[in-house]
Amino acid sequence: MYSFNNDYSEGAHPRILEAITRTNLDQNSGYGTDGHCTRAREMIRREIGREDADVHFIVGGTQTNLITIGAALKPWQAVICVAQGHINVHETGAIEATGHKVLAMPGRDGKLTPDDIIQALDHHTDEHMVQPKMVYISNSTEIGTQYSKAELEAISSLCLSKNLYLFLDGARLGSALTSPVNDLTIKDIAALTDVFYIGGTKAGALFGEALIISNPDLKPDFRFMMKQRGALLAKGWLLGIQFEELFTDNLYYDLASHANSMAEILRKGIIDCGYSFYSASLTNQLFPIFPDDVIEKLEKEFVFSIQEKRADGHSAIRLVTSWATREDACRHFLSILKNCSL
Amino acid sequence: MYSFNNDYSEGAHPRILEAITRTNLDQNSGYGTDGHCTRAREMIRREIGREDADVHFIVGGTQTNLITIGAALKPWQAVICVAQGHINVHETGAIEATGHKVLAMPGRDGKLTPDDIIQALDHHTDEHMVQPKMVYISNSTEIGTQYSKAELEAISSLCLSKNLYLFLDGARLGSALTSPVNDLTIKDIAALTDVFYIGGTKAGALFGEALIISNPDLKPDFRFMMKQRGALLAKGWLLGIQFEELFTDNLYYDLASHANSMAEILRKGIIDCGYSFYSASLTNQLFPIFPDDVIEKLEKEFVFSIQEKRADGHSAIRLVTSWATREDACRHFLSILKNCSL
Amino acid sequence: MYSFNNDYSEGAHPRILEAITRTNLDQNSGYGTDGHCTRAREMIRREIGREDADVHFIVGGTQTNLITIGAALKPWQAVICVAQGHINVHETGAIEATGHKVLAMPGRDGKLTPDDIIQALDHHTDEHMVQPKMVYISNSTEIGTQYSKAELEAISSLCLSKNLYLFLDGARLGSALTSPVNDLTIKDIAALTDVFYIGGTKAGALFGEALIISNPDLKPDFRFMMKQRGALLAKGWLLGIQFEELFTDNLYYDLASHANSMAEILRKGIIDCGYSFYSASLTNQLFPIFPDDVIEKLEKEFVFSIQEKRADGHSAIRLVTSWATREDACRHFLSILKNCSL
Amino acid sequence: MYSFNNDYSEGAHPRILEAITRTNLDQNSGYGTDGHCTRAREMIRREIGREDADVHFIVGGTQTNLITIGAALKPWQAVICVAQGHINVHETGAIEATGHKVLAMPGRDGKLTPDDIIQALDHHTDEHMVQPKMVYISNSTEIGTQYSKAELEAISSLCLSKNLYLFLDGARLGSALTSPVNDLTIKDIAALTDVFYIGGTKAGALFGEALIISNPDLKPDFRFMMKQRGALLAKGWLLGIQFEELFTDNLYYDLASHANSMAEILRKGIIDCGYSFYSASLTNQLFPIFPDDVIEKLEKEFVFSIQEKRADGHSAIRLVTSWATREDACRHFLSILKNCSL
Repeated sequence: MYSFNNDYSEGAHPRILEAITRTNLDQNSGYGTDGHCTRAREMIRREIGREDADVHFIVGGTQTNLITIGAALKPWQAVICVAQGHINVHETGAIEATGHKVLAMPGRDGKLTPDDIIQALDHHTDEHMVQPKMVYISNSTEIGTQYSKAELEAISSLCLSKNLYLFLDGARLGSALTSPVNDLTIKDIAALTDVFYIGGTKAGALFGEALIISNPDLKPDFRFMMKQRGALLAKGWLLGIQFEELFTDNLYYDLASHANSMAEILRKGIIDCGYSFYSASLTNQLFPIFPDDVIEKLEKEFVFSIQEKRADGHSAIRLVTSWATREDACRHFLSILKNCSL
Repeated sequence: MYSFNNDYSEGAHPRILEAITRTNLDQNSGYGTDGHCTRAREMIRREIGREDADVHFIVGGTQTNLITIGAALKPWQAVICVAQGHINVHETGAIEATGHKVLAMPGRDGKLTPDDIIQALDHHTDEHMVQPKMVYISNSTEIGTQYSKAELEAISSLCLSKNLYLFLDGARLGSALTSPVNDLTIKDIAALTDVFYIGGTKAGALFGEALIISNPDLKPDFRFMMKQRGALLAKGWLLGIQFEELFTDNLYYDLASHANSMAEILRKGIIDCGYSFYSASLTNQLFPIFPDDVIEKLEKEFVFSIQEKRADGHSAIRLVTSWATREDACRHFLSILKNCSL
Repeated sequence: MYSFNNDYSEGAHPRILEAITRTNLDQNSGYGTDGHCTRAREMIRREIGREDADVHFIVGGTQTNLITIGAALKPWQAVICVAQGHINVHETGAIEATGHKVLAMPGRDGKLTPDDIIQALDHHTDEHMVQPKMVYISNSTEIGTQYSKAELEAISSLCLSKNLYLFLDGARLGSALTSPVNDLTIKDIAALTDVFYIGGTKAGALFGEALIISNPDLKPDFRFMMKQRGALLAKGWLLGIQFEELFTDNLYYDLASHANSMAEILRKGIIDCGYSFYSASLTNQLFPIFPDDVIEKLEKEFVFSIQEKRADGHSAIRLVTSWATREDACRHFLSILKNCSL
Repeated sequence: MYSFNNDYSEGAHPRILEAITRTNLDQNSGYGTDGHCTRAREMIRREIGREDADVHFIVGGTQTNLITIGAALKPWQAVICVAQGHINVHETGAIEATGHKVLAMPGRDGKLTPDDIIQALDHHTDEHMVQPKMVYISNSTEIGTQYSKAELEAISSLCLSKNLYLFLDGARLGSALTSPVNDLTIKDIAALTDVFYIGGTKAGALFGEALIISNPDLKPDFRFMMKQRGALLAKGWLLGIQFEELFTDNLYYDLASHANSMAEILRKGIIDCGYSFYSASLTNQLFPIFPDDVIEKLEKEFVFSIQEKRADGHSAIRLVTSWATREDACRHFLSILKNCSL
């Protein structure tokens, strides 16, 4: 069985493991106050073109989301996101557990639109309702789509004019930035958001997200919030080392490109077989729609999840590639698909 | 200016004020441990036919909702309600501030349906999502509609089979129970829910809601939760006295009937003028749709709120009657409306 | 049985009930947006000499404390108070339920000292510990003592220099301000704190506390927090009317003076009988120490609570007088005491 | 500079890194549902003699504490611990951030006593106060002391009789269990507590704590709480692998023994030099009291923290050894100390 179930089924890129092993017996100070974290922060600041940004390393995405949103909002404030947003659906109410309402808007193609934001503001007008104060988006999105530069600029300038923080969840940012249709740079992301993160977990690290805070209002005392939520990793240098490696010799982008290339092989092969997709993804998540009997055959050799069952005997499945996906596995998937479709 | 803006624009029925004044210098023990509260609890238990129920008196509705839901749910559990539900829209995220997600479902005519509940359960299947554990409904609803006995039974039995608590917000329960189309008794309400409340604030009291807990799982230590959220009124007997009066000589139902009668006068007059309604309410909230120029004229003499502006030059307004509404004010409203419509 | 159990055993001063009754059928807008609240706010601003202050009316003290502290602090911040502080002991963890640690310090005579504050700061130095950000004191205190002007100035200037908010719980402020040894004015209180409140519940109102926010940092969006915690009373004018009356013709101070006078009668009589006190109170709470057999006899005719049982067969009890305490009851208490002591 | 600052200054025991590297490209299912976690759970159940226990792997200790306590308590319930307890002092209010008060008791030698628990219960008697429901202890404690079997049995049976959960923080459990004066087995720990954890971070793992839930009341839906607080590690098998190694061939105990041996070398040498200790630790944390000028000299070659400055020109410092501590470093420390003391 080969798994296309997600992009965190394997460990880390060998360079990362080697770096951890090489430095294993060095003594470091704890909680991210070590030299590796310092260097990784500098590398990231250079990469994103923001010498003034604060950079924090956090083990996982849900933790990063709840800490960032929980630290930014006053008790009565809310965060706007698209209905499929990770914080709205797949984090067991982590944001509500910090006391804040998630205002879920319909969006388009998995992306939040300026109209969504305006509508949320128009419906929350007085103290009997929550006060929208932050916008949360993911790039790439939960269904593999991605924001264009124009789209992100429109959201960013709306947030600025409405005094809303813009927070971009970059768990799969690498895949978005290396997609063939991307026109955003990581510097654009940093310039257009108040806070965002570069996901490591799904990009070749063992674990870890690099949170980048550009807005000075969000910086003070952030490590207090991290510690309170159990997110100051004792051996914090493990996070620093991983991001040092990812931002040395372009590794972060190369690994994301590999994931996209593998997805592209699958995508083209699926189109060749005559199938269509649930979403227009050119990143590392694909949502092809297959007949249920084809899915049953594929499930004998591959692991993947069902995105949506349809009444017509078809279902959309979710295939995810990663930095570790093997080309031969993609080819094998397509050959089985081709046989099913004969 | 006469106000149809809500059903809490005046003080209390005179009998209530008289009772408070008459007993003013009696010494009572605090926090609801007094004789008035004890008697009021007994009267309510008799009225609802549940000698085993716990009865607590709380100053307001938002407090009652957040305490009841916050006490019932474990941190990862969520409450299902209709999208317009008071807890979803008009309580400034009070439920989320206790840490719990509100799962808003579309509903029909302002009411939650068994299908809504099933859909919510179907979409929350594992530990990456919140766990639905309670259903919250209001009777009458935010748009003046009301549950039939069959509808409430269907929801109740579904909740029972799915191990969900059923919580009924009765801020306007009197108006629902005395509506001409109602086929529910207060005993039915008590029998079909795990916890519900009888609203006093909108029913002739100065303030106060009587919360009735039937499900033994929800009873232990409830007063701890009340105190923690600032809801043990020091001079708790003020609540007891008010409910003693409301449940003496049918006052609670008579006052609700009056509110419904006044609404019925308005409703018939509005229909006579040829207008239609945003919702099929036969309770004390009406949502007629008028041309905007008619609304402007009415606003010169009456206070009310706009429910929904439409693109076609019409708007739905909200008219609310109460135990204190004067018939001459209703007649005057209709005469102005008639003039506008000539 | 006559109760010295607390200062909220009776209803309201008759003038207050009369005002509520007189205006009962007037229509008012809800949630504190009415004319009575507006006038009461103006009267209070004038009284405290702060035209710039925000004034909010809240039903009870626990609610006022949790809303004020919860709105002021960031998630990782804590409030310093004396160990016996109401928020530390008698509010069922209401502050912790908003997510904040209460840092309890030993104090002296029931009062927090600058040394307590400095010690709390010295022990909280980095992000592994909570960040003290607010100081909470009560005047009069839980054991009836009160702050001198010099003491309050010392705390206030320390808070200013350490960037801490100073919050004064004035549930029994009237009793402190009318005590024979008091040298503080209400204007001093307003000038020396960031936020404080004037208690109505224990001072002749049916219920209600007037919260006064002087520090502009604490003002924005405060009504959102009130609504979220269920503290925007629907018929908010009931609070406004009560404070209008309390601040007309000196009623607030006269009622507090009466309570203090009754306590003074008790205090002198107890001293005459040769007993001593647990605390040096000259306000409306007294803590005499009696032999247990004397207490047993007193308990046959009076209600009061035991503050502290001692191993030597004596206990400190708590006697509380109020605006409604009858002089004959005090005299009767003393005559029984005298008989016990013969 | 050599660090005795803590027991998490180095990476992981080489066997652990080798296991992670060896399996790096294996595909695993996420979030702890993989085979490594399954095997590690079984090994731990066997080790502790509780086939019925639930075992969860969590990245860090603060997270483990807040999730366990937050999941166990109802909103108004509190946890009792000793004043120096990690949750009371060093977790930035993490427990309060879940809404629960920490009741800090004086303890003796850093350990909670049955008297502390009884006192906490005696002072919390009604709904105006929090309800103690859990006892939290650490073994070894924050000052290196440890519970004897008799002490743990006394606490355990008191908790049972008072209906309190007993939770043991085992961040440094290995050091306690391999201390020369220890008379507890890990089976005893499992039998006498409702929930406890075996710390990996300070015991040779890169990170990770194994939480063991014996009490069936605490088991249901625990993974929901983990996910909500961001504690379901995506690549969860990394935790499983580490505990598989730790519980293979006695590694966990051997590493803890090494840490204790190194501490014993330091302890004996310090005694030989004529110094005394702040606490009677026979585990891997030592708190010798040195003259400040000696400390200054030691600080030139070693990193450690100051536990307590004294007025007499002496301070207690904190020396921590670990699985990775080198004997030559201990010898060198002692030789410098000896020179200082000449």
